[in-house]
Amino acid sequence: MTRALPFDTSPWSIGLTGVDDDHLAHRESVFSLSNGNIGWRGLLDEGEPHGIPGSYLAGVFEEHPMPYAEGGYGYPDTGQSVINVPNGQILRLTVDDDPLDVRTGTLRAHEQRLDFRSGTLERNLTWTSPADRTVHVRTRRLVSLRHRAVAAVRYEVEAVDRPVTVTVQSELVANEPLPEPHPDLRVQKILQHPLQTIGAFVLDHAATLVHETRNSRFGVAVAMQHRVATTADAVPEVHTEASDDLARTTVTVRLEPGERLDLLKIVGHAWGRELSAPALRDRAEGAVADVLRGGWDRLADEQRGCLDDYWACADVRIDGEPRLQQAVRFALFSVFQASARAEVRSVPGKGLTGAGYAGHTFWDAEAFVLPVLTATAPDAAREALRWRHATLDHARGRARELHLRGAAFAWRTIDGRESSGYWPASTAAFHLNADIAGAVMRYVRATGDTDFEREAGLEILVETARLWMSLGHHDADGRFHIDGVTGPDEYSAIVDDNVFTNLAARDNLRGAVDAARRHPDIARGFGVDDGEIGGWALTADAVHIPFDHARGVHPQSAGFTDRERWDFAGTGPEEYPLQDHHPYFDLYRKQVLKQADLVLALYFFSDAFTADEKARAFRYYEALTVRDSSLSAAVQAVIAAEVGHLDLAADYLAEAATVDLDDLHDNTEEGLHIASLAGIWTALTAGFGGMRDSPGGLRFAPRLPSQITGMAFGIRVHGRTLRVDVTPDATTYRISAGESLTIQHFGQEVVLAPDTAVTVPTPPLSDPGERPVQPRSREPRDFTQAFATEG
Amino acid sequence: MTRALPFDTSPWSIGLTGVDDDHLAHRESVFSLSNGNIGWRGLLDEGEPHGIPGSYLAGVFEEHPMPYAEGGYGYPDTGQSVINVPNGQILRLTVDDDPLDVRTGTLRAHEQRLDFRSGTLERNLTWTSPADRTVHVRTRRLVSLRHRAVAAVRYEVEAVDRPVTVTVQSELVANEPLPEPHPDLRVQKILQHPLQTIGAFVLDHAATLVHETRNSRFGVAVAMQHRVATTADAVPEVHTEASDDLARTTVTVRLEPGERLDLLKIVGHAWGRELSAPALRDRAEGAVADVLRGGWDRLADEQRGCLDDYWACADVRIDGEPRLQQAVRFALFSVFQASARAEVRSVPGKGLTGAGYAGHTFWDAEAFVLPVLTATAPDAAREALRWRHATLDHARGRARELHLRGAAFAWRTIDGRESSGYWPASTAAFHLNADIAGAVMRYVRATGDTDFEREAGLEILVETARLWMSLGHHDADGRFHIDGVTGPDEYSAIVDDNVFTNLAARDNLRGAVDAARRHPDIARGFGVDDGEIGGWALTADAVHIPFDHARGVHPQSAGFTDRERWDFAGTGPEEYPLQDHHPYFDLYRKQVLKQADLVLALYFFSDAFTADEKARAFRYYEALTVRDSSLSAAVQAVIAAEVGHLDLAADYLAEAATVDLDDLHDNTEEGLHIASLAGIWTALTAGFGGMRDSPGGLRFAPRLPSQITGMAFGIRVHGRTLRVDVTPDATTYRISAGESLTIQHFGQEVVLAPDTAVTVPTPPLSDPGERPVQPRSREPRDFTQAFATEG
Repeated sequence: MTRALPFDTSPWSIGLTGVDDDHLAHRESVFSLSNGNIGWRGLLDEGEPHGIPGSYLAGVFEEHPMPYAEGGYGYPDTGQSVINVPNGQILRLTVDDDPLDVRTGTLRAHEQRLDFRSGTLERNLTWTSPADRTVHVRTRRLVSLRHRAVAAVRYEVEAVDRPVTVTVQSELVANEPLPEPHPDLRVQKILQHPLQTIGAFVLDHAATLVHETRNSRFGVAVAMQHRVATTADAVPEVHTEASDDLARTTVTVRLEPGERLDLLKIVGHAWGRELSAPALRDRAEGAVADVLRGGWDRLADEQRGCLDDYWACADVRIDGEPRLQQAVRFALFSVFQASARAEVRSVPGKGLTGAGYAGHTFWDAEAFVLPVLTATAPDAAREALRWRHATLDHARGRARELHLRGAAFAWRTIDGRESSGYWPASTAAFHLNADIAGAVMRYVRATGDTDFEREAGLEILVETARLWMSLGHHDADGRFHIDGVTGPDEYSAIVDDNVFTNLAARDNLRGAVDAARRHPDIARGFGVDDGEIGGWALTADAVHIPFDHARGVHPQSAGFTDRERWDFAGTGPEEYPLQDHHPYFDLYRKQVLKQADLVLALYFFSDAFTADEKARAFRYYEALTVRDSSLSAAVQAVIAAEVGHLDLAADYLAEAATVDLDDLHDNTEEGLHIASLAGIWTALTAGFGGMRDSPGGLRFAPRLPSQITGMAFGIRVHGRTLRVDVTPDATTYRISAGESLTIQHFGQEVVLAPDTAVTVPTPPLSDPGERPVQPRSREPRDFTQAFATEG
Repeated sequence: MTRALPFDTSPWSIGLTGVDDDHLAHRESVFSLSNGNIGWRGLLDEGEPHGIPGSYLAGVFEEHPMPYAEGGYGYPDTGQSVINVPNGQILRLTVDDDPLDVRTGTLRAHEQRLDFRSGTLERNLTWTSPADRTVHVRTRRLVSLRHRAVAAVRYEVEAVDRPVTVTVQSELVANEPLPEPHPDLRVQKILQHPLQTIGAFVLDHAATLVHETRNSRFGVAVAMQHRVATTADAVPEVHTEASDDLARTTVTVRLEPGERLDLLKIVGHAWGRELSAPALRDRAEGAVADVLRGGWDRLADEQRGCLDDYWACADVRIDGEPRLQQAVRFALFSVFQASARAEVRSVPGKGLTGAGYAGHTFWDAEAFVLPVLTATAPDAAREALRWRHATLDHARGRARELHLRGAAFAWRTIDGRESSGYWPASTAAFHLNADIAGAVMRYVRATGDTDFEREAGLEILVETARLWMSLGHHDADGRFHIDGVTGPDEYSAIVDDNVFTNLAARDNLRGAVDAARRHPDIARGFGVDDGEIGGWALTADAVHIPFDHARGVHPQSAGFTDRERWDFAGTGPEEYPLQDHHPYFDLYRKQVLKQADLVLALYFFSDAFTADEKARAFRYYEALTVRDSSLSAAVQAVIAAEVGHLDLAADYLAEAATVDLDDLHDNTEEGLHIASLAGIWTALTAGFGGMRDSPGGLRFAPRLPSQITGMAFGIRVHGRTLRVDVTPDATTYRISAGESLTIQHFGQEVVLAPDTAVTVPTPPLSDPGERPVQPRSREPRDFTQAFATEG
């Protein structure tokens, strides 16, 4: 595997020199900027050449019919797809008569660099036009972490060797043509041209476009305003115009060699379903006016300030492998960008970095992303959970439609309504509901945020507990079974007693019991009485967890280990991902895993398994897991580390760490894999840090693989920061303030007094046995090769 | 339940007086004429008012894209839908200035009657026009059982009380507007206007339209020619014209009271994918010319002759309930019509009586219809099996696509290519393949047709045996399991070791062993060697049949009886069919059956169960079977009778017998349920006749319910006719010719010499216990109520 794009290796940024036409969309995804509300893919300023243009607003989507060859009861009839909103990134430059285009003239230098501390994407280029005029262009771009509705571009152009007339056209472009937005022609037609014009307004150097989506009726206003400066003697001419799908400010100035035009473009956004066009316009323009006064410097300072706050706790230091160091910071930066200002917004599978998965949010938001946010940016975690809570009415409606009680959250959605078109891998995957409940419990444990629990958390726990009560049934012996569901592994479906699901439901029920007892007043408001709470408690204790005594392992679901094994020996590397070459029918009935399922349970429900069960199960499922999902490698890293296979864990970490930077799944062009990026942090902290969070408290068992000589990370605990600094021989813990905190280090209690470092040694590792074997051609990436400097 | 339409009760015909606008489509389905190649729904001659116009040619369909909300490997991308070909039924009458329309003027008398012996649909009406002119109209219509490409209408009109000028417009109409042919708009567009004109030709009183389907490229030629006669003095004026989608012959004549115009219209058809337009035209016109010479009388005589031959063996006589008598003859007539001249054509679920199920053929052709044809019209059974054989290349291709060996026949199709859009209830229902193999074995046993076995049957058996070998797997104990498949019951899916499927596969393997040993030369040509045959034999013996020892019943599939029971008490009558009100997710995971599955196995694989197992299983599954499928009642009748619940069997028979006549499923408008109609015969012969066919010979156990005082039926045995005449106390058997035949009567061998009646008494019935109970509101129709003369 060679690197698709030769990113540089820097500890706090990622850069790329040159422009390679073949991988533009990959580059654009990696260089995306977002604050969780606005997403700008890393397009070249001049718009072309491009891979896939992308400017998104959280929650803005278009609706379209869902087609079925054969329909069925409960199939959603309306789909949702994220759309491109008017694009404010575009600044086109003309040098005398020649438009700047990296494919023409001579590109003498070109670099893009995403900086994790400044939160900006910077570009520097030196270009000689076909007419032999050379210019330097420096652009800096940010999507503000402080101002949720604002993005900005600072565009500087300098004449190098001869006098030139430069013209910059700064634009807002609506309804940009997209490469094939959807395979279904009818849907494609809807998504090709989603915005209809409400109005286009010009005032001085400012312009605003107001649009509305045709079916979903979202109003979207995008405003831009400019500040023009120059070191030239000549006075720039500035002209602004706007029509239906285009607003443009044109700045023209004559530059002598060494003179510079310095253009600041502020782009403001407003959007909503129940706002009038004038209100939208006012909001968008107001957002611009607010920041224009402070100029670029204040915006940039605020941006760095937000990130300084974030990194103070969130940073993970890695010693021994610079590219891993870069990868984990890129990952944490991306996860933060996806959620930082997402007030009551979801964290889609791709964040706001691309239109992959139609912009939908899935279970991995709660299961993979929120643990990272809860530990590093708990306010962002809270907002994502408040978004789920805001969808409760849809979830209750869906449960009613399915003749279930409580709430059944949407498997894939933008606004909370179910938008999945294949029920065996969506509706049946009820574990989502326990994943959401688990995220609530984790957040409350980590923050002690009682307000949230009373306002939103408890209701989620109650309604999901009710769902499980109606989903399962008691057998004649009183055991509680949950039949006909799909667990995390998508190469099995519609199974009975999926261990992950059953354990998750058990935790969900117990969490509802605890929370309802903590807040009986609120619980009563939801109609919860002692009888109902008692039922949850009894049912939780009765949940059946199947075990294969003959093989000494937990089956992924009832009967799983009796199934025929997939013919891995007869499956060539070109047959992966299996779902593209084999029917679901065959995948479902055989022992083959797309992704960790029972092994995910080993991590999430650590206390439900003995160490021996974990070791046996990990080995058993390693031989069956093909990792056709990007959600798997990090989880396998965590358990590989726990059972002592540190080298294997390092390889899985390396794979998780390079999914997007090296485009391992060949689809990073559609956006970053936010959950997989979150997994890098998980593999490090839960894997090599051995961190487990449970009602009993925080536990650690830090142990580094040979390739990493040191690691430090921080997590938020009830408003304080716990820092963990790991060396091969010992770990140092320090809590920032407040009361003392008791943690466990390899099962031993350690009491941490505020601001006092405690260093405890790492016990020796007992022999974990042979390295577990994976299916043919599905070994994880080798750590050393993955991070080799040469591609 | 009241009768939707007040059909009369006649032993050899079915008639209806008046015209009721609300149930026109139901009427049209019941009054359909077909020969298995051409299908004409029973439209009023003048075309309007109509329910759903329908003129079909076997195998002529249009292709369209199959839409999926979320696609998957192996999903068919092209669908097939039967289309309306140019309609030759139309003859419009104008009386002076008034067009005949049963909704205007005064309809003094109106009757349509379908005659099972003449094979004609006759209509008589007396109508007084708004201008107070009265005419008698008598029309007779047939689709020729002798001439596969020909249909004919004889149209007679007589002036009653005043002189009138009558004009008859006899037409061919292409691309008739249809009420909503498909829910998907794109598909609807394709099916609304499926034919493009190739040519329109006129010669004298004849006209021909040649069309081609847009996507599937079928050429279709329909020709009409007329013979005009009159008792009037006036000479009729005749004029013929044709354009793209309309050909019309207009006949005008002045009739004095008592004078008659007598118009004979012959309609010829030709169709195919690889025929030139001139060839198609010649064939259609040639077919017309051939029969026009003989006129109506010869056509009618031939028609009656064909049916005399059929009824000689096929007729089932019922004493004691005239409406049941009519219903069974209607059923046998419909089954025969669906297949009589279907040379290498399929028997679609609706025959050629409507566009329901898009004109597709399913497993019920082999499992439900072919047993009747094999016993009563074996040539038709052979042709249907030759059609399946002709699709073997598609089936082999489908198996390869699924990474299986042998052949995987299409679950739903017109031309053999898979056209199903929901794999859990189609691709996974592999039992279809064994059903086809079973039909081959049954046909060869009944006919001794070695030529067929060598030319087609053996290849089907070999390729389906190979399929099973690759579908199943041996466990550590050597037992052969077939996992992840769907059995006959569509409220379960993707289950392991479905008993029906496993027994069917076992028979399939054994049938392949026997046939390959009978024809080793042919088998070698298919690459079959002794090793492969031995493998089939060993595997057949190793097939695992699960049994629930605790409950003493066979589970429908592994673990089925451990599942949660459906909440029948909480399910109201308005929630049926369940699939329209509950998600598959919930249906699949609970104990609830859409249709007989294990009970179907009790019938098809009678020897695999003890009498006690049958009685227990029948009672167990009765409580779970909701009969949302029309395929169930007849099977339940068969086993109810076998286990001694004769009254219950009679009720199920009554339900099966009235599905279409009383429109019990509220969809007869889309066409008759051919397999359900076939089930009436099955319920009588296999139920009350106790007939079982196995490699060991024919067995009978005739026992009548109290409502039937006598019954006689015939079946074909190696070219001879075996007649079985049942009274409450004894049964008389008679074989028509040839060598003596040994049968079993209640387990006792009876040797039948040719043409010698043998009467044997009926043994006393032992107490079957309490009548088994069905789910709330899902009791079968009561026999007496179903056949009550008042609706």
